[in-house]
Amino acid sequence: MSKKYSIGVDFGTLSGRAVLVDLETGAEVASAVSEYAHGVMDEYLPDGATRLPQDFALQHPRDYLDVFSSAIPAVLKEAGVNAADVVGVAVDFTACTVLPVDAAGEPLCFQKRHASNPHAYVKLWKHHAAQDEANRLNETAEARGEAFLKRYGGKISSEWLVPKAWQILDEAPEIYGECAGIMEATDWVTMQLCGAETRSSCTAGYKAMWSKKDGYPSPDFYRALDPRLENLVRDKLSPGLIRPIGAKAGEITEKAAELTGLLPGTAVAVGNVDAHVSVPAVGISSPGKMLMIMGTSTCHVMLGSEVKTVPGMCGVVEDGVIPGFAGYEAGQSCVGDHFEWFVENAVPEEYRLAAKAAGQNIHEYLSEKAARLKPGESGLLALDWWNGNRSVLVDVDLTGMLLGCTLQTRPEEIYRALVEATAYGTRMIIETFNESGAPVEELYAAGGIAEKNPLIMQIYADVTNKPIKISGSPQAPALGAAMFGAVAAGKARGGFDTIGEAAKVMAKLKDVAYKPDPAGAAVYDKLYAEYRILHDYFGRGGNDVMKRLKAIKAAVL
Amino acid sequence: MSKKYSIGVDFGTLSGRAVLVDLETGAEVASAVSEYAHGVMDEYLPDGATRLPQDFALQHPRDYLDVFSSAIPAVLKEAGVNAADVVGVAVDFTACTVLPVDAAGEPLCFQKRHASNPHAYVKLWKHHAAQDEANRLNETAEARGEAFLKRYGGKISSEWLVPKAWQILDEAPEIYGECAGIMEATDWVTMQLCGAETRSSCTAGYKAMWSKKDGYPSPDFYRALDPRLENLVRDKLSPGLIRPIGAKAGEITEKAAELTGLLPGTAVAVGNVDAHVSVPAVGISSPGKMLMIMGTSTCHVMLGSEVKTVPGMCGVVEDGVIPGFAGYEAGQSCVGDHFEWFVENAVPEEYRLAAKAAGQNIHEYLSEKAARLKPGESGLLALDWWNGNRSVLVDVDLTGMLLGCTLQTRPEEIYRALVEATAYGTRMIIETFNESGAPVEELYAAGGIAEKNPLIMQIYADVTNKPIKISGSPQAPALGAAMFGAVAAGKARGGFDTIGEAAKVMAKLKDVAYKPDPAGAAVYDKLYAEYRILHDYFGRGGNDVMKRLKAIKAAVL
Repeated sequence: MSKKYSIGVDFGTLSGRAVLVDLETGAEVASAVSEYAHGVMDEYLPDGATRLPQDFALQHPRDYLDVFSSAIPAVLKEAGVNAADVVGVAVDFTACTVLPVDAAGEPLCFQKRHASNPHAYVKLWKHHAAQDEANRLNETAEARGEAFLKRYGGKISSEWLVPKAWQILDEAPEIYGECAGIMEATDWVTMQLCGAETRSSCTAGYKAMWSKKDGYPSPDFYRALDPRLENLVRDKLSPGLIRPIGAKAGEITEKAAELTGLLPGTAVAVGNVDAHVSVPAVGISSPGKMLMIMGTSTCHVMLGSEVKTVPGMCGVVEDGVIPGFAGYEAGQSCVGDHFEWFVENAVPEEYRLAAKAAGQNIHEYLSEKAARLKPGESGLLALDWWNGNRSVLVDVDLTGMLLGCTLQTRPEEIYRALVEATAYGTRMIIETFNESGAPVEELYAAGGIAEKNPLIMQIYADVTNKPIKISGSPQAPALGAAMFGAVAAGKARGGFDTIGEAAKVMAKLKDVAYKPDPAGAAVYDKLYAEYRILHDYFGRGGNDVMKRLKAIKAAVL
Repeated sequence: MSKKYSIGVDFGTLSGRAVLVDLETGAEVASAVSEYAHGVMDEYLPDGATRLPQDFALQHPRDYLDVFSSAIPAVLKEAGVNAADVVGVAVDFTACTVLPVDAAGEPLCFQKRHASNPHAYVKLWKHHAAQDEANRLNETAEARGEAFLKRYGGKISSEWLVPKAWQILDEAPEIYGECAGIMEATDWVTMQLCGAETRSSCTAGYKAMWSKKDGYPSPDFYRALDPRLENLVRDKLSPGLIRPIGAKAGEITEKAAELTGLLPGTAVAVGNVDAHVSVPAVGISSPGKMLMIMGTSTCHVMLGSEVKTVPGMCGVVEDGVIPGFAGYEAGQSCVGDHFEWFVENAVPEEYRLAAKAAGQNIHEYLSEKAARLKPGESGLLALDWWNGNRSVLVDVDLTGMLLGCTLQTRPEEIYRALVEATAYGTRMIIETFNESGAPVEELYAAGGIAEKNPLIMQIYADVTNKPIKISGSPQAPALGAAMFGAVAAGKARGGFDTIGEAAKVMAKLKDVAYKPDPAGAAVYDKLYAEYRILHDYFGRGGNDVMKRLKAIKAAVL
């Protein structure tokens, strides 16, 4: 029998990546990236004329199909692997990323008459314009004492499905009325492969308030939100099609075979989410080990032996990550994005030229300079809220702050302060878990930052005072997806019967971990204490200046 | 009789400027600038080996002599004026800028054996390393109930003479012991012209705790500070040589004639201070008109009919600005420096290239972009403490803060926020005066920023909700000095007998004033209310995080 392979396809914020994995050795034998032609649309629609309101972040689903048609053939070609030897395929996606589709599953934005309607497009995870709806949802849920709130740290984020769906209803009722479904992108792209709609228990659980035990909130609750929403679940969310993580969604159709170069009949797994799917990829299979997936934003995922209430976490879902465990998720909405904002907006020409002369990219150059600074040396402290706060405050109306500037303050000091701020944010999440009966015992990291930036990882180790193990694969989500693809195929077809069996062959860690430096950790204890005071002052009602400034801004514009 | 002229020489932070003024028309017929070769020394001494500690800011007195020897001959030459027709000369200087000299009046740093001792050099106004001494001085003065404290808003700044002299004693007792005088730079350069030591009532009053009525604090007070300081006044400050503003200090010596090209016998006025000397230059001669001299820092000077206690002002001195009035001074230690820090450290390459392509300097380019923003549009708010706070908190350990950042924040928005922060700082000063019985009725502005940047001046008009009149001369301090030079000469020699008579001919305002825009002013009322809350929270003990971060920084280094 020839070697067997599976493919994982990871849909990120700016591009999609396919990885082909050898199921005998776990080796990632080929990978290919496809950039989204439309990127993140936050200023104009593709018509070039429709200006998007503040806080919109949209995508074009055509870009996702392009990932399938370019990256999958590319990995087959690169590896010289016959499509017949690929036993399974699975996707993972950013979430909550949602789009309205018609009865045939076509995105409404594909229809010319809707091409200039922002609400016909994909609302990306970082679309933050549904805050009003989220606020009203939270008020209503709290007033009614809805039990589901506890599973989400007491607050539903404006990033999630119901606020986004409600925003469509509020601002484009014709789109809401016309669409036959509002789908998570992971479910939609999975449907493009296997032809049949399934709804992932992971996204339904983490992003749409569903639970294995209680299902969705009652129509009564939705009616209390807005009478027109009463049948949101029945009419738009296909509650009968929810399938558990790790299950098979179907098989590659003739149409998908044409698109991807895979053979009809290849197993397709239920859609997954980038953060959650990475957990088995680093070999985590028991409680207390927190995985940080560090990219444009950071997701923190951890298994627990039971469902506990952790204030301000993103969610806890039974069987949400690996069957048999409670899966906890927390997050920071601005990490890599934060550093990218900095280098695009605040790094002087002199530094650019010096980086060029040294043959370094600007992050490498700044990191090298910042690495020479001792903890505490800059005198700076920042709040990492350039894109709001996802955990533990769950408030997109918070904004970033930098404090301690002097005329001697240098760009590398600010860069380092922004990195440290995100590390303090992670420590705040860890401490909140610790205080809530879901103790964090070990740290793991995956994603572009974990892979590429030793300075940032060392700062995280020092700030949290914990060693950090690093994913052995630079593409953990795609590897995790490939693992689920192999499970969807099953052992009989050359895959695996359980995710645990797949992990034995396919999961990977780097040999070296980042270890905290005791001297640095001691200084960071002091700085973190200051961060915590400011975090609570600005984030917990001591001074709501950030919200008032946003209100003044909105009034002026 | 031929036309008569006077010369004013203005010593700034980075350069000195001479201006030749026609005493018949008031026309500024020539001006010349001489950059200081050593600039501001804040990292190394001229030996290139002696590293300066944190917060040091030194200068080299040789640079001041170079101003005399290059800029004075240059204006004579440029105007084609015969030195015999120059009736008077006067200087103004940054303050408090002090240096230790020997019995012959030579700076100690001119001696080779002291060339590597930082304390032998000039301590520039923005030398901030004597904060410990200032703290101890304030504690002692408060404990003893010293009456002079009230005249300085309750606090003596670390920028002033006694803390700086005490720092020399603490850190370089050999320099303190050896020097025969600790002089204000304005008095020292005046002595270079006329050969005789005088001490200006302006600097003695504003920077050394002297008053016309009470003289200096008692030896008893100095002994309480440190027994070795008991005779500071007698031994180092030449209290018998204090001469009032507007008086004649002497005449150009043979040696000074050689240095400057002026004729021996030309009248030399008592040394003045850049901010204070500008008041007559814009024609202010009555109470309630506040002049802002806006350059690297801003000084606010106003006449009052009586001496009132204003919390956190820099000082009030009888006859300190114009005889017959109380002269109030307040200040912000970081204005132009603030914007300069920004363009040097935080403006991206893309903006530099676009500015070059547009043929603009970077300030012009940023100002043009920032001018397109409405008040409140950026959502940003800053505290203007990059160089501490001089008024009304009088605390160099405060640091800068920027709040409201998002991933959409652009450089021009930050630039504008920093400008606005300095305008809020000015408004805080104005309101403190208003609340203290010294009402501010009109605003005047002079200095590089008033001259060159309409955006900044419009923001100040909107934030303060007051029209602002602008100095008619781009070099108001030098013009003011020339006015005092003419008064030192007297009418009989072709000058004037009083500063009021000089002002009738020589003072100038631009025709156009900046008027507040009511809509902008209304938004700024709201933003200023937010500034005030943060100002008090971080500056008045609500959260001393800025001081604690500085302490952590000091401990780490």
